[in-house]
Amino acid sequence: QLKNLTGTAVCCRQLLAAASKSSQRLNAFSGPSQLRVLSSSVTRENQAQVNRCHGDKERQEKSGSNGGTFAAVAATAASVAMATVAVNKDTNNDEKDTSGNAANLPSVTLEEVAKHNSLQTGVWVIYQNTVYDVTNFVDSHPGGEKILLAAGKDVEPFWDLYAVHKSPHVLSILAEYAIARLTAADALELQRRKASEQSDDGGKFANEPKRSPLLVPINKRPYNAMSPPEILMDHYYTPNAIHFVRNHLPVPKLPEDANSHRVKLDLKDPTNEEKVNRSLNVTVEQLRNDFPRVSYDVTLACAGNRRNEMAQWRQARGLEWRQTAVSNARWTGAPLHLVLKKLFGLDLDKARKLGYRHVQFEGMDGDSITGDFYGASVPVEVALDESRGLLLAYEMNGEAIPADHGYPLRVIVPGAIGARSVKWLCRIALSRQESSSFWLRSDYKTFQPSLYTPTVEDFVRAPAQLYWPVVSAICWPPDGHVIRDGYGADEDEVVQIRGYAFSGAGAGVVRVEVTTDDGNTWQLAQWCNLDDAPDDVDDSLHQPFGQRWAWRLWEATVPAPKPGQSVTIACKAVNDNGNQQPERWSSVWNARGLLGNAWHRVTVKRGQ
Amino acid sequence: QLKNLTGTAVCCRQLLAAASKSSQRLNAFSGPSQLRVLSSSVTRENQAQVNRCHGDKERQEKSGSNGGTFAAVAATAASVAMATVAVNKDTNNDEKDTSGNAANLPSVTLEEVAKHNSLQTGVWVIYQNTVYDVTNFVDSHPGGEKILLAAGKDVEPFWDLYAVHKSPHVLSILAEYAIARLTAADALELQRRKASEQSDDGGKFANEPKRSPLLVPINKRPYNAMSPPEILMDHYYTPNAIHFVRNHLPVPKLPEDANSHRVKLDLKDPTNEEKVNRSLNVTVEQLRNDFPRVSYDVTLACAGNRRNEMAQWRQARGLEWRQTAVSNARWTGAPLHLVLKKLFGLDLDKARKLGYRHVQFEGMDGDSITGDFYGASVPVEVALDESRGLLLAYEMNGEAIPADHGYPLRVIVPGAIGARSVKWLCRIALSRQESSSFWLRSDYKTFQPSLYTPTVEDFVRAPAQLYWPVVSAICWPPDGHVIRDGYGADEDEVVQIRGYAFSGAGAGVVRVEVTTDDGNTWQLAQWCNLDDAPDDVDDSLHQPFGQRWAWRLWEATVPAPKPGQSVTIACKAVNDNGNQQPERWSSVWNARGLLGNAWHRVTVKRGQ
Repeated sequence: QLKNLTGTAVCCRQLLAAASKSSQRLNAFSGPSQLRVLSSSVTRENQAQVNRCHGDKERQEKSGSNGGTFAAVAATAASVAMATVAVNKDTNNDEKDTSGNAANLPSVTLEEVAKHNSLQTGVWVIYQNTVYDVTNFVDSHPGGEKILLAAGKDVEPFWDLYAVHKSPHVLSILAEYAIARLTAADALELQRRKASEQSDDGGKFANEPKRSPLLVPINKRPYNAMSPPEILMDHYYTPNAIHFVRNHLPVPKLPEDANSHRVKLDLKDPTNEEKVNRSLNVTVEQLRNDFPRVSYDVTLACAGNRRNEMAQWRQARGLEWRQTAVSNARWTGAPLHLVLKKLFGLDLDKARKLGYRHVQFEGMDGDSITGDFYGASVPVEVALDESRGLLLAYEMNGEAIPADHGYPLRVIVPGAIGARSVKWLCRIALSRQESSSFWLRSDYKTFQPSLYTPTVEDFVRAPAQLYWPVVSAICWPPDGHVIRDGYGADEDEVVQIRGYAFSGAGAGVVRVEVTTDDGNTWQLAQWCNLDDAPDDVDDSLHQPFGQRWAWRLWEATVPAPKPGQSVTIACKAVNDNGNQQPERWSSVWNARGLLGNAWHRVTVKRGQ
Repeated sequence: QLKNLTGTAVCCRQLLAAASKSSQRLNAFSGPSQLRVLSSSVTRENQAQVNRCHGDKERQEKSGSNGGTFAAVAATAASVAMATVAVNKDTNNDEKDTSGNAANLPSVTLEEVAKHNSLQTGVWVIYQNTVYDVTNFVDSHPGGEKILLAAGKDVEPFWDLYAVHKSPHVLSILAEYAIARLTAADALELQRRKASEQSDDGGKFANEPKRSPLLVPINKRPYNAMSPPEILMDHYYTPNAIHFVRNHLPVPKLPEDANSHRVKLDLKDPTNEEKVNRSLNVTVEQLRNDFPRVSYDVTLACAGNRRNEMAQWRQARGLEWRQTAVSNARWTGAPLHLVLKKLFGLDLDKARKLGYRHVQFEGMDGDSITGDFYGASVPVEVALDESRGLLLAYEMNGEAIPADHGYPLRVIVPGAIGARSVKWLCRIALSRQESSSFWLRSDYKTFQPSLYTPTVEDFVRAPAQLYWPVVSAICWPPDGHVIRDGYGADEDEVVQIRGYAFSGAGAGVVRVEVTTDDGNTWQLAQWCNLDDAPDDVDDSLHQPFGQRWAWRLWEATVPAPKPGQSVTIACKAVNDNGNQQPERWSSVWNARGLLGNAWHRVTVKRGQ
């Protein structure tokens, strides 16, 4: 089977199918733990950083800081977290002992912790039986004062919902605030309470659908899963079953009859966000019957796509997606601008004159602890511009939208980060203000690489990210792939490469280039012509200028390395505005690990 | 005066005004010859490339190839051209003797040359008394068969109009086709004819306006000039007198009365480009009176901006603009989409349904040799979309548009390369086809860095470039700046930096970052707040989302180097789609030297 790799004309689909059956696939794709990714990061680009911090690390080790409470943290975060702690210490000039030497910490009871439940009394929280006084951290919490919801309590149930917290970076921040340990008796009591909450959890996650075993999950609750990269490359339209899934909250209880699902449309008072001047409902049936049925090919990608690579340069907050939090589908629905025009008589000019600046979207997926619903908003200049292509979509690839992807109705914001295409849509509001959603205001924003820990003010100042930059990635071969026996002696052996490329805001990809000498020379990749792709997919006219929302799949071949040697292949895409991917993660890195679009590199080794 | 540099709060305007009076300015900006730039390129990034080609060069020198005819070429092109010849030989595997050993060439008469004026007879041309048989080059000529216009003749009058030819790169290609020398008598005869044509030339360039001595010309006929960088940074709205000038052809004879100037509006037959189905005229007066008067702040930049830096990596065809083929102005006029709507009843949907795909623009500036007029076109999705902001502009910064900038009417295509904002507008046509203009079809297109010499087919396949990618550049200090005496001993001395940033297609710049360690760490630049800028220029709301067409001026300070040492400062901008400038010219380079947006680097040295 591997002998096939020598031919450039070999059908990629066969090749990938064959490879997916091999153990290679299992090694590469069947859910390596976050731990493995982290430890590999230490051995690679991050080595320099770790070395730089070695002095601090040694000091910590000498003081016995790695024992006791932090065994758990250390186990998951490994030395990257230590490096991060050291970096934070450097930049903050913080004199406090952040070693978290649990063995020496005093013991406190749950009752005592519970008393510290406000800024007045001090804000204490529990994580894995250690007590932290986070009073001084409240102002820096990216989620704002929501942190007070956990005051005097165990944070774990909250972190189950806001999974971004479970990262070495966050744990290392928390470590600085350790003040005590729970008494042994109360640690047991907490465990008992958690066990009983587990059954509640079952309630919260009662609506999760059955999922394809081909998906590659990276978080179970809420469910988040990547597409399997080698199968992804087999389809222009990603089959619904393997479309990547990014859920921020449990899947809500969904109506059985899609057609009768109602969306509330509100015109908020431009001078008073709390007041609604006019409100009406529209059902999916009305959207189907009363408006044109419009279909667009749209590539959705999680803004955290490729965060695992970025995190190898420096730890970044969030789920460590590899390169397949990306999929392409044909979405069908009613154009949003027509709905607002017909039902409210509003076009962009009129909306602006009335003082509206944003269109807010709200999902049915709620967070029962904070009372928030998942939401987002986009500027009126985007929402009400026909050419931006926003759809109230009721079909995905010609089928009813699956539960994980927003059944029965999802707003599709073409070219935007996936987080703006709100699923399970139940409310649309025109407003002066942006959505108040946590995910719009305190998440999904980028910062300069020098800002390690954005404050609340940093989040307020930064614009909400809307669109994707240009990006491409290699889906075959996987990084670390070893070309094995049978792939032998011919002079003209090549490595066949396959990947995707897309760009946000309707900019199309005009070319993908591949290098094996770290960018000194580049060769042009060829477009794939898959059976399921539109006939004119090679033609830039497949989508009109400014509406090039679909990815382009590409392939290239490079000379195979000699036996026992390896080659690092990198790709970059160029869009029709002339923008191209930046080279290094040091230029791209941002605290939330978003918009990872540095050149994608994979190293392929050839066996002896 | 230089002591001022130590303060971070010192007014930049004073500082720059002071600097502009010093000889420093003269050294940096008063028109260094192309030759100087080229020779410096050899001593820097290009050294490796030159070295690589050294073998070929040696061979050429041994065969005496540098003598005779090529003295002139060698004098202007220096060793870069030789390197390029060598590269071409490598890539073309051309066995022909390309040495151009003029001393050994046979002599021919003007009459003999004149007989070789077609593909049938062979295509001979004369350049500086050497005769070239370019028959085999016709297919590769980026300008297509226009080259046949010069068949049997001296090419110099043509090259005076298409100045891109006068580059070492082109001369090196030509060198491969040398076959003969003009007889001494006919060389004199040709000189006599040229002298008489010179007076014709005076006719062609009879309409050139008086220009500001502050402009930095890089070509006299047609006139092309950069803005003076240190003065440029003093104004948010570049004064009309120092707005960079990019003329492709002589300034045409302009009407005295702007209001009575007529633009022809044509609906071409979508099935027959030669046929016009409907035609009407509109005067500037009508545009002023019958349509809304709309103003936009738009940064125009020549697509060749910063080509001189790109050409230091590898020779690129075209004028070697430094970083100030960029200026910002408030343009006022009638929205194009409203004009087409009112006069033809056409909106985007209707135009598409009728089969229109492009809107063509034609200027009054003609090329009397080929009969062409300067022209461009943009897709209907751009021309007819209100949000893209195309204006039929009759004012520039509140004044009548100056002669060099398109008086009395210019179409402004915000966010696009300057070449699409056609000056001296006299015709607009809706069409199935793109403009047939040389500058739309055979110029202003980009290619992968591996394509050294695009063929005619390459130009046909590549899309016409419309928009600019994200770019920033440093305007102060100039590269090579030496901090001199009086700039002394203080520990906290800094270098103050000032520059611009903009992005095409309406994407705004969200931040500019500066590095002094080659991109390992970055600091954030601050926005300048100039007196003439709109009050809300710091606010992203100054221009609505998607219509951020104006530049942002920024400043930053970095620690000064120690006496006798130097520091290299680089900047990059990030736009609101998350796109950012690429790092190296090796990723950006393209044969025409367009869209130069690698990090901008300047090296500043401190005197002992």
